[in-house]
Amino acid sequence: MQFDAPLALQSGASLRDYQLAYETYGSLNADRSNAVLICHALNASHHVAGVYAGQDRSEGWWDTMIGPGKPVDTDRFFVIGVNNLGSCFGSTGPMHVNPDTGRVYGADFPVVTVEDWVDAQARLLDGLGIAQLAAVMGGSLGGMQALSWTLQYPQRVRHAVVVASAPNLNAENIAFNEVARRAIVTDPDFHSGHFYQHGVVPKRGLRIARMIGHITYLSDDVMNEKFGRQLRQGLDLRYTTQDIEFQIESYLRYQGDKFSEYFDANTYLLITRALDYFDPARRTGGNLARALAVAQARFLLVSFSTDWRFSPKRSGEIVKALLDNGRDVSYAEIDAPHGHDAFLLEDPRYLGLVRSYFDRIAAQAPAAVRELPSGAVL
Amino acid sequence: MQFDAPLALQSGASLRDYQLAYETYGSLNADRSNAVLICHALNASHHVAGVYAGQDRSEGWWDTMIGPGKPVDTDRFFVIGVNNLGSCFGSTGPMHVNPDTGRVYGADFPVVTVEDWVDAQARLLDGLGIAQLAAVMGGSLGGMQALSWTLQYPQRVRHAVVVASAPNLNAENIAFNEVARRAIVTDPDFHSGHFYQHGVVPKRGLRIARMIGHITYLSDDVMNEKFGRQLRQGLDLRYTTQDIEFQIESYLRYQGDKFSEYFDANTYLLITRALDYFDPARRTGGNLARALAVAQARFLLVSFSTDWRFSPKRSGEIVKALLDNGRDVSYAEIDAPHGHDAFLLEDPRYLGLVRSYFDRIAAQAPAAVRELPSGAVL
Repeated sequence: MQFDAPLALQSGASLRDYQLAYETYGSLNADRSNAVLICHALNASHHVAGVYAGQDRSEGWWDTMIGPGKPVDTDRFFVIGVNNLGSCFGSTGPMHVNPDTGRVYGADFPVVTVEDWVDAQARLLDGLGIAQLAAVMGGSLGGMQALSWTLQYPQRVRHAVVVASAPNLNAENIAFNEVARRAIVTDPDFHSGHFYQHGVVPKRGLRIARMIGHITYLSDDVMNEKFGRQLRQGLDLRYTTQDIEFQIESYLRYQGDKFSEYFDANTYLLITRALDYFDPARRTGGNLARALAVAQARFLLVSFSTDWRFSPKRSGEIVKALLDNGRDVSYAEIDAPHGHDAFLLEDPRYLGLVRSYFDRIAAQAPAAVRELPSGAVL
Repeated sequence: MQFDAPLALQSGASLRDYQLAYETYGSLNADRSNAVLICHALNASHHVAGVYAGQDRSEGWWDTMIGPGKPVDTDRFFVIGVNNLGSCFGSTGPMHVNPDTGRVYGADFPVVTVEDWVDAQARLLDGLGIAQLAAVMGGSLGGMQALSWTLQYPQRVRHAVVVASAPNLNAENIAFNEVARRAIVTDPDFHSGHFYQHGVVPKRGLRIARMIGHITYLSDDVMNEKFGRQLRQGLDLRYTTQDIEFQIESYLRYQGDKFSEYFDANTYLLITRALDYFDPARRTGGNLARALAVAQARFLLVSFSTDWRFSPKRSGEIVKALLDNGRDVSYAEIDAPHGHDAFLLEDPRYLGLVRSYFDRIAAQAPAAVRELPSGAVL
């Protein structure tokens, strides 16, 4: 969808003549009350589910969760996937032309925040004629957007599903982001973010960034179980500092190489910064309960026991702050071995929980959200 | 000390005409029974304690631990600090000339292992006329060397003090090492490890390596306490992807810059590989108790509650394997907030514990080690 009116950004800059790539699944019902918006995390897109023509299997990043008969059932809900501004999968981003200069944005693409993305998503809903969402849902950075929706547009969200997320990044999270950004920015092929006109891509930096990311997505346990100290080739050590010796090295290099082939370096900087900046309690002097007081939605929060990137403790902070405000909150910590990645994986308890919650959403009349929430915890 | 006889390495290669830099503190007693060898970790050296002439304060990396009247009391013990082969603080390493070719080793410096280092250290002791150590001691990778001493030279070690260490690296540890190595190796200034003759240093890679390292040395808690989400300049966000916004970013960049000024890139590769390779239970099919059966020394093991790089659980594996063999083991998990770094910091309980242990060593007649160990746990 094309937008001509400038979007005022949190930084003070604004963006005009921008485009949002989106996909929809299922049908919008007559009273337009069954829309579910899916917000993506770092490297995903609007393609959340389903199979494109000519493909064998889905490349949708949340295809385990969303589709006909699935937990978020597209036979009942009208699901919208949207690619965020600054990303590199179709919406306006650093590799597009800046209408003010006629040149590719590159590093000049304005810094975008979770709040800016939510504002842009709200405009998309306006364009689709959707006044209120049955639910907004996301994992990780996507969960931050879902939470922010309930603060920026409290009347437009009946339910928020916030998975494996946090009320803000802690110092360690920011630190990992910063190392990844430095790897990209100091790659000589980055050219201060204007590498497009040099015909190169800072692949070295992107590889390192992705390798660091991957380590933090997985739990210690799952890494030990999947790779342990397994050698790549048989049992013999080769004694080499630069070649691959252990399976885990091979895995990480592969992930890094793959990522560097398709992901945009400036997008990586922008999206990690959006993560760093998100902190709704900043405007209330660190008081999260006060920051969330404006929310009207009902909430499902889910965390995973071995997620050390966005630990259950961080979801717990959101739950507590919502309960302090008397909000209706369901919360589950799923005992899963997969670390942060668990939110994208098939886990029967997790999927069953989300299915039940969406059953409840479907059963509720849209007007229910205007009653005073009860503050019950499942 | 200069060594002419070739040292056979685990890889099958050998090293000749090499030098080991070392320092000693205190005096060797008449029966040569009070020597304590200190083994260093990744970026430390033989300069473990004391103040060099013309300096205000000690640059010794374990000066809190070692010195007159300190837990390892140099008024009673003859302490030896040694720089390992392949390091960059005086012992023969990648920046030295290969006597076989007349050219600087660079990436051709042979891969060295913990076992190779211990063999080299044993030759140093031969040169100093020390048949048996009162104790060998080290933290992290240094603890691995202390443990390996008890396996390679069981008769030459009365006590081993193994701090914040592990019986081997797990997949996550190897993964972090591998990302750091890739950052160095893919820096265009690395020149396949022969950067010396190009007059450059792969500083970009070294900075990234050090930043990753630093994150893993600190605990989540201590990072949150020290830095949290504090901004660098006052309260205003500046909305920038490449400039520093948070204090933690400033800290990491500073650490990375400082490190890249003095540390050798090939040494970084070699030392992280020595960490990766260490695994005494490899030769016993993963059975650590069988691998440690040969040890005769008495042991003190210390771990730190918030150390997620070498967690208490890993020290516990060593303790269990030693007890399974009826060895005399003291073990303490210190409840410290500082993560892996705690082993270098001043903590009264930790320093008190080591002090008591060395009091016990001093009280014991050297012959005591030849009695059957009792298997008691403090």
